Amino acid sequence: MVFMTPVTVSETALPPVPLTVEGASVLHQMMRFRWTAWRAASPEQRGEILTQAVAALKSMEQPADGRQSAVFSLLGHKGDLMLVHFRRSFEELNQAELTLARLRLNDYLEPVNSYLSIIELGLYESTTKIYTDLASKGVQPNSDEWKVEIESVLQRQRQAMAPRLWPEIPPAKYLCFYPMDRRRGESVNWYTEPMADRKRMMHEHGMVGRRYAGEVKQIITGSIGFDDWEWGVDLFAEDPLVFKKLIYEMRFDYVSAVYAMFGAFLVGLRVPAADLAGLLAV
Amino acid sequence: MVFMTPVTVSETALPPVPLTVEGASVLHQMMRFRWTAWRAASPEQRGEILTQAVAALKSMEQPADGRQSAVFSLLGHKGDLMLVHFRRSFEELNQAELTLARLRLNDYLEPVNSYLSIIELGLYESTTKIYTDLASKGVQPNSDEWKVEIESVLQRQRQAMAPRLWPEIPPAKYLCFYPMDRRRGESVNWYTEPMADRKRMMHEHGMVGRRYAGEVKQIITGSIGFDDWEWGVDLFAEDPLVFKKLIYEMRFDYVSAVYAMFGAFLVGLRVPAADLAGLLAV
Amino acid sequence: MVFMTPVTVSETALPPVPLTVEGASVLHQMMRFRWTAWRAASPEQRGEILTQAVAALKSMEQPADGRQSAVFSLLGHKGDLMLVHFRRSFEELNQAELTLARLRLNDYLEPVNSYLSIIELGLYESTTKIYTDLASKGVQPNSDEWKVEIESVLQRQRQAMAPRLWPEIPPAKYLCFYPMDRRRGESVNWYTEPMADRKRMMHEHGMVGRRYAGEVKQIITGSIGFDDWEWGVDLFAEDPLVFKKLIYEMRFDYVSAVYAMFGAFLVGLRVPAADLAGLLAV
Amino acid sequence: MVFMTPVTVSETALPPVPLTVEGASVLHQMMRFRWTAWRAASPEQRGEILTQAVAALKSMEQPADGRQSAVFSLLGHKGDLMLVHFRRSFEELNQAELTLARLRLNDYLEPVNSYLSIIELGLYESTTKIYTDLASKGVQPNSDEWKVEIESVLQRQRQAMAPRLWPEIPPAKYLCFYPMDRRRGESVNWYTEPMADRKRMMHEHGMVGRRYAGEVKQIITGSIGFDDWEWGVDLFAEDPLVFKKLIYEMRFDYVSAVYAMFGAFLVGLRVPAADLAGLLAV
Amino acid sequence: MVFMTPVTVSETALPPVPLTVEGASVLHQMMRFRWTAWRAASPEQRGEILTQAVAALKSMEQPADGRQSAVFSLLGHKGDLMLVHFRRSFEELNQAELTLARLRLNDYLEPVNSYLSIIELGLYESTTKIYTDLASKGVQPNSDEWKVEIESVLQRQRQAMAPRLWPEIPPAKYLCFYPMDRRRGESVNWYTEPMADRKRMMHEHGMVGRRYAGEVKQIITGSIGFDDWEWGVDLFAEDPLVFKKLIYEMRFDYVSAVYAMFGAFLVGLRVPAADLAGLLAV
Repeated sequence: MVFMTPVTVSETALPPVPLTVEGASVLHQMMRFRWTAWRAASPEQRGEILTQAVAALKSMEQPADGRQSAVFSLLGHKGDLMLVHFRRSFEELNQAELTLARLRLNDYLEPVNSYLSIIELGLYESTTKIYTDLASKGVQPNSDEWKVEIESVLQRQRQAMAPRLWPEIPPAKYLCFYPMDRRRGESVNWYTEPMADRKRMMHEHGMVGRRYAGEVKQIITGSIGFDDWEWGVDLFAEDPLVFKKLIYEMRFDYVSAVYAMFGAFLVGLRVPAADLAGLLAV
Repeated sequence: MVFMTPVTVSETALPPVPLTVEGASVLHQMMRFRWTAWRAASPEQRGEILTQAVAALKSMEQPADGRQSAVFSLLGHKGDLMLVHFRRSFEELNQAELTLARLRLNDYLEPVNSYLSIIELGLYESTTKIYTDLASKGVQPNSDEWKVEIESVLQRQRQAMAPRLWPEIPPAKYLCFYPMDRRRGESVNWYTEPMADRKRMMHEHGMVGRRYAGEVKQIITGSIGFDDWEWGVDLFAEDPLVFKKLIYEMRFDYVSAVYAMFGAFLVGLRVPAADLAGLLAV
Repeated sequence: MVFMTPVTVSETALPPVPLTVEGASVLHQMMRFRWTAWRAASPEQRGEILTQAVAALKSMEQPADGRQSAVFSLLGHKGDLMLVHFRRSFEELNQAELTLARLRLNDYLEPVNSYLSIIELGLYESTTKIYTDLASKGVQPNSDEWKVEIESVLQRQRQAMAPRLWPEIPPAKYLCFYPMDRRRGESVNWYTEPMADRKRMMHEHGMVGRRYAGEVKQIITGSIGFDDWEWGVDLFAEDPLVFKKLIYEMRFDYVSAVYAMFGAFLVGLRVPAADLAGLLAV
Repeated sequence: MVFMTPVTVSETALPPVPLTVEGASVLHQMMRFRWTAWRAASPEQRGEILTQAVAALKSMEQPADGRQSAVFSLLGHKGDLMLVHFRRSFEELNQAELTLARLRLNDYLEPVNSYLSIIELGLYESTTKIYTDLASKGVQPNSDEWKVEIESVLQRQRQAMAPRLWPEIPPAKYLCFYPMDRRRGESVNWYTEPMADRKRMMHEHGMVGRRYAGEVKQIITGSIGFDDWEWGVDLFAEDPLVFKKLIYEMRFDYVSAVYAMFGAFLVGLRVPAADLAGLLAV
Repeated sequence: MVFMTPVTVSETALPPVPLTVEGASVLHQMMRFRWTAWRAASPEQRGEILTQAVAALKSMEQPADGRQSAVFSLLGHKGDLMLVHFRRSFEELNQAELTLARLRLNDYLEPVNSYLSIIELGLYESTTKIYTDLASKGVQPNSDEWKVEIESVLQRQRQAMAPRLWPEIPPAKYLCFYPMDRRRGESVNWYTEPMADRKRMMHEHGMVGRRYAGEVKQIITGSIGFDDWEWGVDLFAEDPLVFKKLIYEMRFDYVSAVYAMFGAFLVGLRVPAADLAGLLAV
């Protein structure tokens, strides 16, 4: 599984940073539900609280121009409910948080975890192409001409990939979420590998994902500068077994086997706002 | 303890991913019991709460077509009670959680830990055989023909191994549960070892386990993509000393000595639902 | 990305410690807001509490000779509010903490994190120059003459850099804060690298930052001896995407790729004291 | 400090697992005492609660055929009280826990830590001898004859060492407790060292301990399969300084310097049940 | 920065353990102050509680034959108050803890951290001298003659250094406290370095400290066997900037750069008991 295809001289001299394009701002909120306090409320109180919460969540779960929220019932002690918000900006995410905090239902929700990120598409292929083109034309990295050319590539990609950058939350039954890093160890360090090797490893990695395309929908979000890991991964599927199969197969990819570091894994079932009262029935 | 048996060329060229078959969905729930609040309840309240809880748990502890739950009294501060649920799907596990959350006894239970996984049998032997067969026939990995052949192997294994994939919870007095990973270090990395070496190491590892077959029953669950470690291990025995003897002996296995990373260990005693009132007597 | 420019003999013999100059004392306070208790207060109580808090914060947010505080609404579960205080001394920071603790609003704030540091400018260039000058004059390190010369360099720098040492809190919409270390691993260790190599790496690192100068304002604080990481970084920008772009590009710098270790990342939106009542409306 | 005594061929071929014999089951319980709630109780309530607790603890502190409990007043925030239980089985430890949980004093005790283990004596010397004997007779490891011979060695050791396997809790004024592991690093791994080297290192280690025999009494418990570290160590002494001297000297032993990993250290003073009321006086 | 001075044969053969002498037993207690509950108390209650607490702390802050306590107001969320106790024994530290626990003020103090250690002076110079002398006389390590000679060296040192072993708590305005270890990595391990190299590194390290002698007072405490790190360091200064300057300069020392591992750093301002009411005014 060692990479032996010779890397051309021009490739080794490329700037190291792959281009990316970004779309929706994303916030995951993991909440513990205070069942004891909830049970202690009167049926009337619970009814009023649910009426208010369901109305708010129904409105938020309607996709609206890159904005949408969804509720999941989590498995295990890491939380009872997870809210996933897609928005146009971090400011809108902050508003979504505040909207929830102001619901009376919030008295029964204890925040235990969260993840802040932004939908990101990594452009290893296009990056190599444009970097090679510019280098062959003698354009200096970070010169004005360079910046104009790069920005024009990014604009084209943002348009071409708009549906993937501003998606609806896939309607699958199950969600798997986890954060991850690329390793920066003392002897194994993703960020000092040549662009050409990284591109090739990412390509192989993508090939595995493609084999699962019919069974699982994947959304990658970038979180460098936003949260404690570098990326967040959301997988959506009708059968949760596919999460294990996909991630286990990928663990043998060279890029995952050697460079991937994983945070906590969360699995939940989608709960339409209309079913919230059923979920919280006592 | 170094592996010197030469590995054949065909073996080194095999795809790296071992096949697995899966059975029951499993959730471990570790709970702290709120003794102070419990003591503060009246005897009548405690009686009603126990009546409701015992009825629910009695029903859940009956094995029913791959579904069963069991209660354990844990040793130490990591929890007072552990519930282990075997179900047909993650959705059913979510229902089991909700059923417990709706019991009045839940007011006295504080969730402190959990583990989500699925019973898994790793098929290193069959994998090597089918991969070698397919390679010798010139079948390309991941081609349609390849997929059909692999699926047919998996189907046969699922049938042959059904009793181990959908077991009852062994009725032993003691349970030991722990999660584990295979190491992905900077120089020692399970996932970059050739399939043939992994198969041989797993075989030696299995030989140790077999020597304890009469004294301890082991259930391995896979949790890649589901929880924070790669596997969960449940050991069941009448004498807990065998947990130490088995795991200590295995620690000298090459695969455990070098590649195993362990999470927290939990030990509990089985408590039939009928004995719950006795356990919680004040 | 290896450094091959030969290092002169005189450079390798330099003392290893780079000079620094310091300015404002800085405290970050991350707080969870107790929405449930807040909602339980009467509108009159909330009104009085806010009136008192807004008055105090309005006074603290006025820049006054190196003293200023600002409030941010944090994204995610790591806190709801972050207060950033710039002061003339640690004693004044302690007073700022106590002033807040004595507000009635404090009953609704739960401290969850904090960071103590001091604005610091690292002087790799000047250090190399003065160390080389003194060495060429035969002045012994740490001799009285050496100390006088060094102190005179520091005094000049403190004056020249006063605006950067005693800045106002930049008025940008978004803040990103994170702590970091330079790695001291078993084989990769920043603190045993020669001054000349460190200077060169820091210079390259600074070149990346300079390209973002128009979009992001950066304040570096030193925290060795004060808090659990070596430095704290505050980035201020109108568009939070620039945080990701800048930090991702820097991650490929040799100094960051190899030597940087990062703590938790926090992102917030600036909230003028006058808008606090709006933020906390129920 | 490298081991240069040549290892004989027969020694290098020995099975790697050292034999052990086990005695009392041990549970350490670390508790925070709720002083505020305690002060809020009336003197009458406190008196009744103490009367009940002292009676129970007096009974438990009487050594009875391998069963005994002791109370310690811990130093620092890791707990106020530590209970150490020696019992005949884990089931009896579970009963000891439940007995305490049912005391009214339990309303004022918050469990913060615990450790589950079993008194263990490692038999490196006897193991080497019997393994060498059996090998010289051509007895196959794990054959029926092998098992009979090994079990007969273990039985002799259990009888000869009964006083150390089923000891009373030493009556010293101070206790030091800590858990530890043998390192399994990527290049330094205790479990892949040959038995002969491990035996020699453990022997040297034991020599240090022997020099402190008059001042400190040590009880080693094994916890592989029971708790999160591999061993627990209890040291008992009249002067706590000896804990530091002994452990510091041992840290330079090759086996500790290179292979020992330590958990949290706890120090407490023995409190006879009869003195509990004095300890908890308000 | 590599050590090239040849080490004499006699030096390499020395026993590895440096001698130490010990003085005052030390406990650091970090407490969160419950401002909300405090504000809820009546002015009369607060007055009575403060009167009791101030009287107790005034008495404890008087130096008395190696016994003294001091209060610090901590910066940041790691605690509001830190109490530092110097005592003649661990038993007296336990009494100091209990005295505080019995104050009514204790209802408003939540313990969040602590550190248990003992003032220690490491005697690398004397150790090398006496070990060399004894070796040259042919005295066997750990023989009776050896022990007598060593004990006589220790006695002389304890007398000569009594003022540093039983100091008063320095009256400086600021305190910086942190725990630390010497690294025991897989390739870099302090405890396997020869005594002569360790002595030389510690000597260089001490030279840096000496340059700050006029500005900062340092007290080193040993905690092997007592708490989770090997040493605790207390620095006292009028200007906290000197903490950063000293520790940053030391970080480039070979011994700190390569072998030092640091825990959490705490910074506080000294608060005389007489000023407690002012600190806790609402």
